[in-house]
Amino acid sequence: MKRDPKQATASPPTLSEQFDRGDLFAERCPSREVLKHVTSRWGVLVLLALLNDTRRFSELRRRIGGVSEKMLAQTLQWLERDGFVLRVSHPVVPPHVEYSLTPLGKEVGQRVVGLADWIELNLPRIVAAQQACADVSE
Amino acid sequence: MKRDPKQATASPPTLSEQFDRGDLFAERCPSREVLKHVTSRWGVLVLLALLNDTRRFSELRRRIGGVSEKMLAQTLQWLERDGFVLRVSHPVVPPHVEYSLTPLGKEVGQRVVGLADWIELNLPRIVAAQQACADVSE
Repeated sequence: MKRDPKQATASPPTLSEQFDRGDLFAERCPSREVLKHVTSRWGVLVLLALLNDTRRFSELRRRIGGVSEKMLAQTLQWLERDGFVLRVSHPVVPPHVEYSLTPLGKEVGQRVVGLADWIELNLPRIVAAQQACADVSE
Repeated sequence: MKRDPKQATASPPTLSEQFDRGDLFAERCPSREVLKHVTSRWGVLVLLALLNDTRRFSELRRRIGGVSEKMLAQTLQWLERDGFVLRVSHPVVPPHVEYSLTPLGKEVGQRVVGLADWIELNLPRIVAAQQACADVSE
């Protein structure tokens, strides 16, 4: 992502050229905001639910236990603006809107699956550790 | 994790025996709470900061830009109760408390690193996608 020095003096770098890579430990790095969206309570589950399927809003809402209409809409909007989710609105009556992952969304989704699968598979070990911790503090 | 049926009638299953594996899509599954801790705003950064190092509270606070004392303490307590973080208090004056990852914590930490690294490395692509999205909506 290095620019030609002559070009660099001619025009200011675009926003994307300012970041060779993010730094999550830095308070003002925009990667923090992306992490927030991806790891938000419903962001993780939306990415998981869309990983292999195109889905309508109502399908997503049924799949993700406990999510409200408002929070699902907000989460989809975040992920759409980050370039992870594609929203396609078909011009029919009644309106038919479909959500899917972009190539970028599939990449981040794979990493989220890695974490989510680990938690699901290891839940018995975690619950056992929680119980051991509770026993010690009693 | 299947129990002997005769034993099962003799005593109720322990909490950890109730879960062969978690289901993040189920509203009441305890895996949801674990996911919340691990992917909380500061949980991710605590796991990253401890992945290869034992650190004192003040070191963690300096490393993680923007975290308050209260939120760091809360996050460490969550992760300690889930069995991911080990807190060792040395009986000296002044008090000396060290935090590190347990073997379970290192496993989940590896998955979190997979996600965090991807976001840091791909931030330029994400920022470019955000700009494209902003251009379309203008």
